[in-house]
Amino acid sequence: MSVHELARSIGSSRLITDPAVMDSYRRDEAHLAEPGHPAAVMLAETAADISEALKWATAHRVPVVTRGAGTGLAGGGTAVEGCLVISTTRMRSILEVNPDDQLAVVEAGVINADISRAADEYGLMYAPDPSSFEISTIGGNIATNAGGLRCVKYGVTRDSVLGLEVVLADGRIVRTGRRTVKGVAGYDLTSLLVGSEGTLGVVTSATLKLQPKPKRAPVTVVGSFDSLRSAADAVAAVVRGGIGPSLLELIDRATLRAVDDWKRIGLEDNTAAMLIAQADGVDADAAAAAMQKHFEQAGADFVAVSQDAAEAAQLLEIRRLAYPASERLGQCLVEDVGVPRSKLPDMLESIDRAAAEHSVKIMTVAHAGDGNVHPTFVFDRTADGSVPEAVWTAADEVFRRALELGGTLTGEHGVGVLKRRWLSLELGEDSMQLHRSIKAAFDPLGILNPGKGF
Amino acid sequence: MSVHELARSIGSSRLITDPAVMDSYRRDEAHLAEPGHPAAVMLAETAADISEALKWATAHRVPVVTRGAGTGLAGGGTAVEGCLVISTTRMRSILEVNPDDQLAVVEAGVINADISRAADEYGLMYAPDPSSFEISTIGGNIATNAGGLRCVKYGVTRDSVLGLEVVLADGRIVRTGRRTVKGVAGYDLTSLLVGSEGTLGVVTSATLKLQPKPKRAPVTVVGSFDSLRSAADAVAAVVRGGIGPSLLELIDRATLRAVDDWKRIGLEDNTAAMLIAQADGVDADAAAAAMQKHFEQAGADFVAVSQDAAEAAQLLEIRRLAYPASERLGQCLVEDVGVPRSKLPDMLESIDRAAAEHSVKIMTVAHAGDGNVHPTFVFDRTADGSVPEAVWTAADEVFRRALELGGTLTGEHGVGVLKRRWLSLELGEDSMQLHRSIKAAFDPLGILNPGKGF
Repeated sequence: MSVHELARSIGSSRLITDPAVMDSYRRDEAHLAEPGHPAAVMLAETAADISEALKWATAHRVPVVTRGAGTGLAGGGTAVEGCLVISTTRMRSILEVNPDDQLAVVEAGVINADISRAADEYGLMYAPDPSSFEISTIGGNIATNAGGLRCVKYGVTRDSVLGLEVVLADGRIVRTGRRTVKGVAGYDLTSLLVGSEGTLGVVTSATLKLQPKPKRAPVTVVGSFDSLRSAADAVAAVVRGGIGPSLLELIDRATLRAVDDWKRIGLEDNTAAMLIAQADGVDADAAAAAMQKHFEQAGADFVAVSQDAAEAAQLLEIRRLAYPASERLGQCLVEDVGVPRSKLPDMLESIDRAAAEHSVKIMTVAHAGDGNVHPTFVFDRTADGSVPEAVWTAADEVFRRALELGGTLTGEHGVGVLKRRWLSLELGEDSMQLHRSIKAAFDPLGILNPGKGF
Repeated sequence: MSVHELARSIGSSRLITDPAVMDSYRRDEAHLAEPGHPAAVMLAETAADISEALKWATAHRVPVVTRGAGTGLAGGGTAVEGCLVISTTRMRSILEVNPDDQLAVVEAGVINADISRAADEYGLMYAPDPSSFEISTIGGNIATNAGGLRCVKYGVTRDSVLGLEVVLADGRIVRTGRRTVKGVAGYDLTSLLVGSEGTLGVVTSATLKLQPKPKRAPVTVVGSFDSLRSAADAVAAVVRGGIGPSLLELIDRATLRAVDDWKRIGLEDNTAAMLIAQADGVDADAAAAAMQKHFEQAGADFVAVSQDAAEAAQLLEIRRLAYPASERLGQCLVEDVGVPRSKLPDMLESIDRAAAEHSVKIMTVAHAGDGNVHPTFVFDRTADGSVPEAVWTAADEVFRRALELGGTLTGEHGVGVLKRRWLSLELGEDSMQLHRSIKAAFDPLGILNPGKGF
């Protein structure tokens, strides 16, 4: 195989082969995944570049790993040995913002937050907001079907993708989906590609649904609880009450303590968990009052309702600091189980139990309104640089418990490389076989992101 | 092949082979589709029955056509020669209604409206409401990804399906999806199966999202317009205004006249179109007032706002009578194009033009808030019993115009048999080839609903 041949067809300014420069394209944020060494990194500028690259990769049987900003937490963007890495970060054009049809057409490398900024002048927003929304690309969001904080009300990435332009493994460029709200002509290839972690094709642009921005600033409700169970009970009551919060986050004591040690937020000794909720509809005040009542009835020892934007921003900052605060304490394995919302108390208790039994430090935050729980396993690497066995044992217990509760291994991060060995537990062998058949239909040579996802 | 063999394995009480009795299982509501003669009709009672039937069908290469209540308008349920028809209408159990997780698990033959009735005591509803919701089954709704009147606010069938139990072509029973709100483990097989018109597997049960019922009774706004364009302009203004109606329907003059001739609704001479809108949120009054203003600004010659449930029901009855009123006038071909919402005026004008140019009677209603237009072509069969060529010519123009406007052949009815010959115009050859590969991955022998869908 000759990388020079590819350089000739797409232009050498778009191709990196210097190992030192390529090094920064080998990993995403899944630090526990072991990356291989790419043969080349392509900084794609057009769908045609990617088409050329995939024709070349097909001809030479070269594995292809596509990446956006590299913010993935499951390792979907991890380089494999001898691969071509395709980076979409130069494909940053917002091709269309259409207020009449409430949609946008954007290239894969556009930063998530830039879409809402472009839509803002029309009173519209792009709803899905993964924590990485200021740095992650829409292409990466699509690859993982990213969630976020406000998806409890506005839905995940898949719910906002109307159509895609995608390059197939053999280089053909195909469009899926539509610009209409509804449409049932053919199979839903769009939904199939969203969340497929680069294993079925390379997304080059997307037609996205925009939504009217909330009619008013959100009202924020914060509650602190002296037990994790009472916080989880409050969440269950809010869900059951059909209140429709625009955000409903839970932060556990270990996380709060780490943030407090770092930023001095004035944590009380008896706080076991905090809930932060918002409502942004025209009935936000009524919704906030209802949530306050549910928090109190579930046993909160402190509840406050705020209309103040600065105060709300401070509270959300505590939530956003959760992950960096964990990282200060050691190596982190960020997990992402999801359970039916009524099972949230059970899931949180099981995480606590796994931590205690295996003497592993676990710090937990949750998109509680969705039943999506992020236990972060914090540890020091062993002398030989590996992950302590107890961490994997505890993680294994957490995964199995999520499945027992009718849940999933991953709510929004994807399978990547880190969760592959558990996947068949969730899907079963017949479904795995269907997955392999679908993969073969799109990518008969198996060159697209091998060893990732399903 | 021996039907007796199948009768032995599932019990002969579940199998019909009498041609006279089978006759009522040969067609759905796509009267222009020519059905074949089934070898047998199975009245399935369990997923195990269907599994047995598909093992048998695989062994003997027998085509299988699955049907619910037979309300389909595109012919997806049309029998093919020598097939096994599987009817799911005996599979009517609502297996679970779970208010804590806001979901229901139901068998494929459950009637759509029965799900909301079962959820009602918990203040929940199953949102998608095709016009057939009192008689159509959830299995059929899933096969076509059915829309409906309130999906302008609450989404189509796919948006409410969390997971499926499905029997594969070879008889294996597989579960897709989950009970959680979010989940990204593996490909989205659930969305792929929804809308696949029985060509990828046989759905036996579904896990459905339930939603809180609207917090108040809807406010209804009705407007009459002396031109179709001003009515369409009013719709575009409502969409652009981000008002979020729970229903926004358009009825054209020809339809209104047919209803008036039948039911004497007191139609004014100069009425070219009527809009019926509803809002059901806590801000319903404000939304209704905003819609009233948009209707007036677009040139409505009459607008009324009503809080009265009986009055609203009467207005919606006009909408529901549209199709039976057309059927009184002749044979009907009910079409289902969708366009980006800003193109609604163009689409409606093009339909008028096609009707005039080819002297074909077209009566149009639209789920206008979704850009989903139902032109009904009304005609008398020719002496030899066939459809007049002018009808197909006019339909062809309407389809092509919808595609030119960035739209789709079918917003909610499906491709079935009636729209097959136009499908590649919408999808393109590369996408068609992907569709064939996916079909082969699920159904390598091609026994599932051959000649339908993609």
